[in-house]
Amino acid sequence: MQTSKRIGKMQLSPIRRLIPYANAAKKRGIKVFHLNIGQPDIETPKVFMKAIKEAEIDVLAYADSRGWDPLRQSMADYYKRIGGDFELEDFIITNGGSEALQWAFVITCDIDDEILVPEPFYTNYNSFTAPFTVSITPITTQADKGFALPDEASIVELITDRTRCIALSNPGNPTGVVYTREEVEMIAKIAKEHDLFIIADEVYREFCYDGKEAVSFATLEDVKDRVIIVDSVSKRFSACGARIGCIASKNKDVMLGALKMAQGRLSSPTLEMIGAKALYDLDPNYFDPIRERYQRRRDVMIDAMEKMDGVMIKRPAGAFYAIASLPVDNAEKFAIWMLSEFEQDGKTVMVAPVENFYASKNMGLNEARLAYVLKEEDLHEAMKILDAGLKAYPGRTI
Amino acid sequence: MQTSKRIGKMQLSPIRRLIPYANAAKKRGIKVFHLNIGQPDIETPKVFMKAIKEAEIDVLAYADSRGWDPLRQSMADYYKRIGGDFELEDFIITNGGSEALQWAFVITCDIDDEILVPEPFYTNYNSFTAPFTVSITPITTQADKGFALPDEASIVELITDRTRCIALSNPGNPTGVVYTREEVEMIAKIAKEHDLFIIADEVYREFCYDGKEAVSFATLEDVKDRVIIVDSVSKRFSACGARIGCIASKNKDVMLGALKMAQGRLSSPTLEMIGAKALYDLDPNYFDPIRERYQRRRDVMIDAMEKMDGVMIKRPAGAFYAIASLPVDNAEKFAIWMLSEFEQDGKTVMVAPVENFYASKNMGLNEARLAYVLKEEDLHEAMKILDAGLKAYPGRTI
Repeated sequence: MQTSKRIGKMQLSPIRRLIPYANAAKKRGIKVFHLNIGQPDIETPKVFMKAIKEAEIDVLAYADSRGWDPLRQSMADYYKRIGGDFELEDFIITNGGSEALQWAFVITCDIDDEILVPEPFYTNYNSFTAPFTVSITPITTQADKGFALPDEASIVELITDRTRCIALSNPGNPTGVVYTREEVEMIAKIAKEHDLFIIADEVYREFCYDGKEAVSFATLEDVKDRVIIVDSVSKRFSACGARIGCIASKNKDVMLGALKMAQGRLSSPTLEMIGAKALYDLDPNYFDPIRERYQRRRDVMIDAMEKMDGVMIKRPAGAFYAIASLPVDNAEKFAIWMLSEFEQDGKTVMVAPVENFYASKNMGLNEARLAYVLKEEDLHEAMKILDAGLKAYPGRTI
Repeated sequence: MQTSKRIGKMQLSPIRRLIPYANAAKKRGIKVFHLNIGQPDIETPKVFMKAIKEAEIDVLAYADSRGWDPLRQSMADYYKRIGGDFELEDFIITNGGSEALQWAFVITCDIDDEILVPEPFYTNYNSFTAPFTVSITPITTQADKGFALPDEASIVELITDRTRCIALSNPGNPTGVVYTREEVEMIAKIAKEHDLFIIADEVYREFCYDGKEAVSFATLEDVKDRVIIVDSVSKRFSACGARIGCIASKNKDVMLGALKMAQGRLSSPTLEMIGAKALYDLDPNYFDPIRERYQRRRDVMIDAMEKMDGVMIKRPAGAFYAIASLPVDNAEKFAIWMLSEFEQDGKTVMVAPVENFYASKNMGLNEARLAYVLKEEDLHEAMKILDAGLKAYPGRTI
């Protein structure tokens, strides 16, 4: 009586598996600045709880498997504003972007089929593919090139007869990359020429800085039948705990597959859909001050890290992450050491080691992902602590 | 560019796929009595919304992947009351029992592994196994024997070297069966002797009638390392829309696998866990009047159906379903006809065809599942309409 081989091979989240060390530090009375996880400190818009509190619910019943229609309509309206031609019926509401990604992989892939993913990638893609025995083929991108995509030929040569789709997040987690229009159109061209689906994880869409914009795959007319959009309220509206996302596509077979998955698990949580509709109905200007706030935070963090001895980091244009190459023997060891053995004035910093954001072996061993989701004064302090930690760490390489 | 073969082979929910016919009927102004779906009309206890409304939440953050500890503790306390030796750490909160079942299957089974399931079974087990390419081997049970389990030898002969677990719901959906202690202990014996896991779906635990009790697999000492409990607030507290359930096991490998799945999708919805804790903290006497109410409803429904010409039905002891053998050519055709072509005083009845609750072919073709989740006066009326429908149906076989 053993558990399955596939569950045995699955990873614990490299973002979350160090939490016991953080909890132990907190028990010792140490304050931990969490740069390891994309949990924004931005207040969830009050309309969310207001809508839920005002809902008159005697029986908290299953919702429609496809989701609550008023929310689906508000999502369609939102996509029309960003130039995507979606109607209510092109959406199915999911339990976060996580569920949408799982469905996208199983809808497009049979056993041992392959998906192309630029690496480093959101590490939980591993957890969404492994149970379905789908393989990730990495398109390796590099920190010193700002994680730009390689040229078309380098991507095409990775395609096999088992390749079913290209999945990518834009803006990128964990890299903060915002792909150029040329890169987005190159992916579209490759998908068309090699008959692939495109799984576009665009949950950070509004978080682009320096005047940049992320080109949504939802706006590309000539691949509209191959694009599967994955989205979420988590980051967009600082409502991670709502677990409301969606899968959207103009491809009827894809949406039939999504409906089958949706009906199996009955429905998404009813109250959270009521709250989420209020979020999508916010004035689109809602994002402007938040975008500015994140941009300032990014600059606080990057400015500080650029000055640290031996740290290599580029200023990313999107999301709220950056990957830093650290002057340490191993970023995971360093992260654990920061939590277990280091403190400055009773405080320390938690970062996420990046090794498991790569599918390729022996990459990112000294890289960490840092999320700039704290307020500026905390980021200033966290950077000082990180700098001191890097100087004190026994495994430092400079 | 085609969707996957496995998604193509998956079913649309036989419980939900006839909803478009029901919606069309409603558009024509017809009132539909829903006996097709286990959506109770019992009021959700007010403590659920009260706890959520009183929660002070500025940032709706991700919860711990394992769930909100106070809810896990309340679940452990609940299990202690029913005789299960579970601690807080033996629980991971899931998005409904649905997610817990998916995880149980992938934690125990690799590709083409098999699970034994008494049929007819909750049809969504198909949707929880097909994406993982796990097979269901049915243990056929029969209406005229009250869906009792066959003898040990008949079950053992279904076991192959690919069999990994026995999954069963007790009390049973769709049958309403409550297994005897002898049946439960026989399953435990088989699991021990053939080194199998037991996936015990006990979401209807409190709904046993005529003084019967469901023996929980959580109370069996000698198989505690092989039992995986799946549970949910949906039916227990009439909170289906909360989508809060759990997976619980004393087996550390199982719970490590569950943690991997949990971390991948980050967390269950935060607010709903706050509400669910208030439900588990209700006085255990909460169930008494509800159990009585369901028993009366059961009797209203069964008494009426026993009198209908050509209908074969047994009085089930648990859950809130019964399977009726109908005097019709095909139960799905009949269900559609009831929604599309029949009405009595502007009203009709929706039932769930049972064919897809069987894994064996050509079984249950004239059977329907009826959920007695409506108040007695509605059930009386629904029964009259069903009787009239059966008499008028062109495909009747008597």
